[in-house]
Amino acid sequence: MAQAWTLASRPNGTPTHDNFALIDVASPALEPGQIRIANHWLSVDPYMRGRMNDVKSYTPPFVLGEPMQGGAVGEITESAAEGFAVGDLVLHMAGWRDEAVIPASQAQRVPALGVDPQAFLGQLGMPGMTAYFGLLEVASAKPGDVVFVSAAAGAVGSTVVQIAKAKGMTVIGSAGGADKCAWVSSLGADAVIDYKDGTPLIKQLAAVAPNGIDVYFDNVGGEHLDAALGLANERARFAICGMIEMYNTGAPTELRFAARIIGARIRIQGFIVSDYMSRAGEFYNEMGGWLQSGQLVREETIHEGLASMPDAFLGLFSGGNKGKMLVRV
Amino acid sequence: MAQAWTLASRPNGTPTHDNFALIDVASPALEPGQIRIANHWLSVDPYMRGRMNDVKSYTPPFVLGEPMQGGAVGEITESAAEGFAVGDLVLHMAGWRDEAVIPASQAQRVPALGVDPQAFLGQLGMPGMTAYFGLLEVASAKPGDVVFVSAAAGAVGSTVVQIAKAKGMTVIGSAGGADKCAWVSSLGADAVIDYKDGTPLIKQLAAVAPNGIDVYFDNVGGEHLDAALGLANERARFAICGMIEMYNTGAPTELRFAARIIGARIRIQGFIVSDYMSRAGEFYNEMGGWLQSGQLVREETIHEGLASMPDAFLGLFSGGNKGKMLVRV
Repeated sequence: MAQAWTLASRPNGTPTHDNFALIDVASPALEPGQIRIANHWLSVDPYMRGRMNDVKSYTPPFVLGEPMQGGAVGEITESAAEGFAVGDLVLHMAGWRDEAVIPASQAQRVPALGVDPQAFLGQLGMPGMTAYFGLLEVASAKPGDVVFVSAAAGAVGSTVVQIAKAKGMTVIGSAGGADKCAWVSSLGADAVIDYKDGTPLIKQLAAVAPNGIDVYFDNVGGEHLDAALGLANERARFAICGMIEMYNTGAPTELRFAARIIGARIRIQGFIVSDYMSRAGEFYNEMGGWLQSGQLVREETIHEGLASMPDAFLGLFSGGNKGKMLVRV
Repeated sequence: MAQAWTLASRPNGTPTHDNFALIDVASPALEPGQIRIANHWLSVDPYMRGRMNDVKSYTPPFVLGEPMQGGAVGEITESAAEGFAVGDLVLHMAGWRDEAVIPASQAQRVPALGVDPQAFLGQLGMPGMTAYFGLLEVASAKPGDVVFVSAAAGAVGSTVVQIAKAKGMTVIGSAGGADKCAWVSSLGADAVIDYKDGTPLIKQLAAVAPNGIDVYFDNVGGEHLDAALGLANERARFAICGMIEMYNTGAPTELRFAARIIGARIRIQGFIVSDYMSRAGEFYNEMGGWLQSGQLVREETIHEGLASMPDAFLGLFSGGNKGKMLVRV
């Protein structure tokens, strides 16, 4: 019998284990065109929190009682689809479960780039593309820019740090706690600020950005966004990728420095990575090269077993991951 | 003896009459290249509040005890500059006073477009250019877009309403009180909401924008900005021109809908009109034509006499103006 995680109830604020239930699911015979996949790696991402609310957004809400979805890498164990053979590794969106039965058209063969397959859930997947296009396209970051990135120890943020350094930018990261900050430094960040150390963020940012910032890559929102507004140089560009600070609390974002948008002519642009899918080729070329040459450090925080999926997910909101959060099934 | 308004003290919150003092100023003999101007019209603009604070911004702070500055139209009464004759009407920035002595290089002859000279402080001046480039360039507004503009009875907002209608857009304006709302309607707005009527703005906006908004032209900030975020369609563009709501209070901007920036891929762009000075020709061509043909309604709220300048200025923050606020000297 296959198993899958379902949303038992919609979280009100920070999710708890009670919101999740592991259920038995049928393991049906394949219809023509379908494949059966044994999932090896399940992706764990902050955006999934949004799908737990019953509101219209760019991804539909999870349906209570049904298996949840998310990125996954697995191995084909049975195939009724031409061109897909048992043993092939595929990427797909039927995560949060151990076995997936889907049309082959919804799966993508893991590219043969000589890197671990789970990299396609991280730096070579959505988080990597988010970092790449968010920094270079949405924020129009250029060599010489001073870039501030929040959640710099996360899957997206740590990749932003490294792409920015590879492109000749000055990088300031924020992370929570000495251990993560040291790690972000080791990735090449020119300065790191610890948002947990009790000093107001804007003071910390001002101290390490005496000439202001040209780019802000936002994964956090709230106080981070406000500090970035306070220190933004003329014509600064903000790529708004995530606002994890408010996903659970739902508290309003308080901006003391909103009026600087006018005088400094700040551009704030929200984006979601799927808008850049048609340009994945550019991304694979450049990122694949960096990964293969060892220029990009890939870090993963791995939880073991399907049962650990809620733990891994809840860990995203308590700072439980360095780099990409994954579950190995 | 000439007279000028000076800032006697920096306002803390909403300015009061105590912050201003009318002082006698010297009426010096002209140096070569200078002109003497009898001011006829003084411009009264919200951005002047920013110059009353002692903070670095895109315009320097007013100096305590010295004559304040601002747009003005006057007549040359004496000239020591070639090409400038007594009787010429000029535009310049030595407002807040009855007589100005400045280098002719800092004055611009009022263009002969057959409209009243004070129009060059309003629809044919900075407020008009702000509306024109803010709407069409900064917000990339196109025919068919649903445009929301706050402070729609103000000098900038009322011009935005009319340009948007001239360009085939649907326009929703906000204004304070039934009289102003009726006037904004009369300018062609498809819907007007009264921000003073006690109903939450977002409810009012949702009622008149059942298909959301594509463009927001912000003169107010705060709750207006938040409502616009809440109702913004995918790829909506916000031109951030002013945040009069917070100029005096300094209270933080509370945004409940900030996270919509991400999913809806909203672009928020601050601007100041002087960035578009090099393109003034485009503006004069199009706006001049509309004004001469009567397609654009020009409305002015006029206070009489130099002594009324603080009254006029304070009126900006209590909703005391319809259209452009002016003082006639």
